[in-house]
Amino acid sequence: MDEDRHGTAAGQGASPAVGRILRIVREQGPLAASEIVRFTGLAKSTVSTNLDRLLEAGLVREVASPGLKRRKLALADGAGFVVGVDLGQTHLAVGACDLRAAVLHRARIPLLLRRETPEAVLSRAAALVEEVLAGARLERGRLLGMAMGVPGPVDYARGVPVSPPVMPGWDHFPAASVLAERFRCPVFLDNDVNVMALGERDRGAAQDVPDFMFVKIGTGIGCGLVVRGEIYRGAKGAAGDIGHIGLDGDPTACRCGNRGCLEAVAGGEGLEATAQAAARDGSSAFLAERARRGEPLDAAALANGAAAGDEFCNRALMESGTKVGGVLAKLVNFFNPSLIVVGGGVALTGERYIASIREAVYRRSTPLATSDLVVKKAALGEDGGVVGAAALVLDEVLSHHNLPRLVGGLSREGLSPGDAVRG
Amino acid sequence: MDEDRHGTAAGQGASPAVGRILRIVREQGPLAASEIVRFTGLAKSTVSTNLDRLLEAGLVREVASPGLKRRKLALADGAGFVVGVDLGQTHLAVGACDLRAAVLHRARIPLLLRRETPEAVLSRAAALVEEVLAGARLERGRLLGMAMGVPGPVDYARGVPVSPPVMPGWDHFPAASVLAERFRCPVFLDNDVNVMALGERDRGAAQDVPDFMFVKIGTGIGCGLVVRGEIYRGAKGAAGDIGHIGLDGDPTACRCGNRGCLEAVAGGEGLEATAQAAARDGSSAFLAERARRGEPLDAAALANGAAAGDEFCNRALMESGTKVGGVLAKLVNFFNPSLIVVGGGVALTGERYIASIREAVYRRSTPLATSDLVVKKAALGEDGGVVGAAALVLDEVLSHHNLPRLVGGLSREGLSPGDAVRG
Repeated sequence: MDEDRHGTAAGQGASPAVGRILRIVREQGPLAASEIVRFTGLAKSTVSTNLDRLLEAGLVREVASPGLKRRKLALADGAGFVVGVDLGQTHLAVGACDLRAAVLHRARIPLLLRRETPEAVLSRAAALVEEVLAGARLERGRLLGMAMGVPGPVDYARGVPVSPPVMPGWDHFPAASVLAERFRCPVFLDNDVNVMALGERDRGAAQDVPDFMFVKIGTGIGCGLVVRGEIYRGAKGAAGDIGHIGLDGDPTACRCGNRGCLEAVAGGEGLEATAQAAARDGSSAFLAERARRGEPLDAAALANGAAAGDEFCNRALMESGTKVGGVLAKLVNFFNPSLIVVGGGVALTGERYIASIREAVYRRSTPLATSDLVVKKAALGEDGGVVGAAALVLDEVLSHHNLPRLVGGLSREGLSPGDAVRG
Repeated sequence: MDEDRHGTAAGQGASPAVGRILRIVREQGPLAASEIVRFTGLAKSTVSTNLDRLLEAGLVREVASPGLKRRKLALADGAGFVVGVDLGQTHLAVGACDLRAAVLHRARIPLLLRRETPEAVLSRAAALVEEVLAGARLERGRLLGMAMGVPGPVDYARGVPVSPPVMPGWDHFPAASVLAERFRCPVFLDNDVNVMALGERDRGAAQDVPDFMFVKIGTGIGCGLVVRGEIYRGAKGAAGDIGHIGLDGDPTACRCGNRGCLEAVAGGEGLEATAQAAARDGSSAFLAERARRGEPLDAAALANGAAAGDEFCNRALMESGTKVGGVLAKLVNFFNPSLIVVGGGVALTGERYIASIREAVYRRSTPLATSDLVVKKAALGEDGGVVGAAALVLDEVLSHHNLPRLVGGLSREGLSPGDAVRG
């Protein structure tokens, strides 16, 4: 259990009951107290005491239910809100979200992550948060917490990026602490793919699926694993780093120093190189024409070409999908998920791309592992990162580790990442 | 939540507290009541009520602690016992174990699984259980439950094998029910690799490691995944089926119909074929000599040859290890465990084999994923399956889903697989 700079370990006296009660009210409310007793298996007295605390804290409210003497309990949607921050390689997006992670107000700016210092990026993020809070006319005192997704590995318990390859200057930079001090609320930092997985779990293509994989295919390729409803981070927070899984025998050089990494072969940069070569040597008339007009030659260009019937573009995208699918086939044998959600810029080029992944997975996984496997496109588009970050904050602040402090009226800065605290 | 033939769904009134209290007493006892309050975070009154129930049921006992006024609570080791059954392709082993999964009495017979009907196998298993119970002089009424590991995929909630390739006649055979009826206790059925993983978790090489992979390399190759201390089974119970992960470009035919499956290339049968060819064409003098003496040519023969300095035998084993390691390297990037425990007949041929796996994993996984990764040999030898099955029963009968019934004195046949019941 780590003490860390943006929070302290949760108290030993925390009762898990309050978190279970709030979760069930949030997911299935309005509910009568007797239903909560039945669904949670908790003692009547425990449910009653904790409902009183939740009502007092304003997180739960009573609603009249026609025909019933007793009132039912529902989530008090207005009791608080959270902020999700989505930091990408070329953009920064912020959203204020309600207690179900629905976006109330959003803002988005272009930003070249590589070109700015962490201080400058965080100061722009803070300004964007202020803008969103003002725009949504939300009362500052009701801000329960904030989370930010970043394109790199993160030490989740400490809220710092760890040797992120595309974020120069951010190694161990105390990003969560900086925002926590500025906004006086708990702030959580996670890898962008994990965050997007949580968004799909709460409001996207993976609702009510306890175990699934979210695969992002953009410039980089990564995966968020959800196990029993929670992100599985692995020993070093590196779980899901599938972009550097090697394709046996493939000679393509990767910037990591290895050869044949999936990301180098099938990711956005690999596709860009393919598109540029095809424009030069004329294998694609469509791309050659684009190059003449000075338009960018990237995955989107390939998608446009495929849509326009250019055979080369179509084949290049299918080959990328097949290679991603070949790696996923191995992981499906190992992890046996019921669902793979595919997102990210390259994946969103179209259903045919998803289909090429799906086919490769079905061809090379065992029949048992694929018997009910669904491979589908992410449901949240540009909002995915913001919604996911909001989902992450909500998991944390409404968890049984941290909720008692919120309900007990303790300082909110005392919250800590839930997975640093094992029950 | 499935109602099933060997048990019914756990009662909604079950209190998770009793399971948490018993677990902490079992793992860290003797403990004072105040320590249990502190460690579990439960209310004093909850701890007190549940300790009374556990004392009454005889699962916990009071021990005097010198210098302290209050007595401490400890697990009542003699309060009950469990039986673990380990069914292999060529053996059947049974052990009676205490509440910490330590073997009290064991028996083992050779058995050719392929040659016998399920009825015959289960009847021999029942006879062996009787023998062990008699040998250990255990009171039948204190038998809390039984679990059996089998070499094939299992529908865990229903207690039946599902299309097991090396168990003809066992598809959907109600193995757990048959034993449950015979012994009037809850019976759980699981894949042998999952079971062995639990054995290593409780009494072997993975103690106190929440997330790890147990890889079995024998005739077949399989993997048990432990996530947050529990077996992760996947959507179809097929998680960990790594034997049929394909090696890109490898032409070796597998009995599953695909080519290049890890099991066909690097498993026991592949090694046997290699050894036989080498004995025939004389590439190994050691193996040729063995063949002349009519001795078996298998993985053990290769291990003996390698130990005797035969270069071919050594190389063949190293190649198998390198291929297993190459696949594990991909899975390590994905799953980022802190520990891989390697067991099974081929793996136990020696430390050099484990070293060849370790080297391949380190060579091809990302530096972050391997920074603290340990790859080591299983600690439990022949007992692994029996101890693991005992650990599985204990997880189940002492879980918060089922324990209240045990403590409450309800029929023990009403217990159900914990993972069919989500909290």
